[in-house]
Amino acid sequence: MGKLDFWFEYGSTYTYLTVARMHAMASRHGIEVRWRPFLLAPIMVEQGLAQGPFLPFPQKLRYMWRDLERRAAAHGVPYRRPSRYPPNTLLTARIGTLAAAEGWCAGFTERVFALHWTEDVEIGTEANLQGALAALGKDPADVLARAQSAENKQRLKDATDEAKALGVFGSPSFVANGELFWGDDRLEEALAWAIGA
Amino acid sequence: MGKLDFWFEYGSTYTYLTVARMHAMASRHGIEVRWRPFLLAPIMVEQGLAQGPFLPFPQKLRYMWRDLERRAAAHGVPYRRPSRYPPNTLLTARIGTLAAAEGWCAGFTERVFALHWTEDVEIGTEANLQGALAALGKDPADVLARAQSAENKQRLKDATDEAKALGVFGSPSFVANGELFWGDDRLEEALAWAIGA
Repeated sequence: MGKLDFWFEYGSTYTYLTVARMHAMASRHGIEVRWRPFLLAPIMVEQGLAQGPFLPFPQKLRYMWRDLERRAAAHGVPYRRPSRYPPNTLLTARIGTLAAAEGWCAGFTERVFALHWTEDVEIGTEANLQGALAALGKDPADVLARAQSAENKQRLKDATDEAKALGVFGSPSFVANGELFWGDDRLEEALAWAIGA
Repeated sequence: MGKLDFWFEYGSTYTYLTVARMHAMASRHGIEVRWRPFLLAPIMVEQGLAQGPFLPFPQKLRYMWRDLERRAAAHGVPYRRPSRYPPNTLLTARIGTLAAAEGWCAGFTERVFALHWTEDVEIGTEANLQGALAALGKDPADVLARAQSAENKQRLKDATDEAKALGVFGSPSFVANGELFWGDDRLEEALAWAIGA
């Protein structure tokens, strides 16, 4: 069975297209996906892009919104442009990290992104997190407490360090058979690599 | 017949993949392509990226070379990594601009890129320009003189201003039916847009 590591940041716009497509595409190709949340902000800061990859570049930012909308339509992915950008993703990433350790990261992440990108319930807000946890039947108070434990905070730091060591510099990124791919528009290529095509 | 404006910078790496594929792909879809050279450097400087989109970002730069190689292989495009990056492209862009005005830009540009990307004859060098002009049966002295005329220099400035006004922020970019697309990996989408698909 092919394996793929899916490295992602909850605040990344293009990552939504991947999150929305990953389950169906990986299933179709019989690929086992490890969902690996990390924090992109520290990596961006190291690149001298403290405001992220789009905000400092107005033309690129404008293009991004249009491109996202076009590609969502092309992929049949529901899309409603969120009111606010970028969101604050630290708490969501901590919960995602806990979820990854416990095996429910995919479902949690799909719901977080769907709320943000189809119902304009912003990632990182209480409404978004409660909604995503409720959909999975999780007890929010319990999850929040464990997500903010020292152990789990360290897990997220370690994941971010691991991403950096792999050469990850943006989200989404994929690692398949030792090869790094960056961008939702490389998902097909990464999946093909995972099955050795 | 569908129409596409192909905006490009001679020093852009990913642009090679487009230059190598454009003729065959546009012909297959019956699309008329206007080759529009411009200078990316002034636009990059305005974005605060005086060193371009890759050099300041070592991880992204490393990824770019690997990604280029993989995608060239996937597209069946001959590829040999050039010894030097980035090249100095002002003179080449001036000749390309003259060529665009006179209707021989595609052939010139294909040869310039092929020399750079398959024979390691660097873009902007005398060997590259002479080789490309000779392949088209052009008199280099005559072309160089006209390429460096005040009128032609102004043409290139105007083209760069036009690109900027269209929201172009990188190379390759495509404009089809008023829609802007950026990146070699959007070529298929831009061609589809050009034919209204």
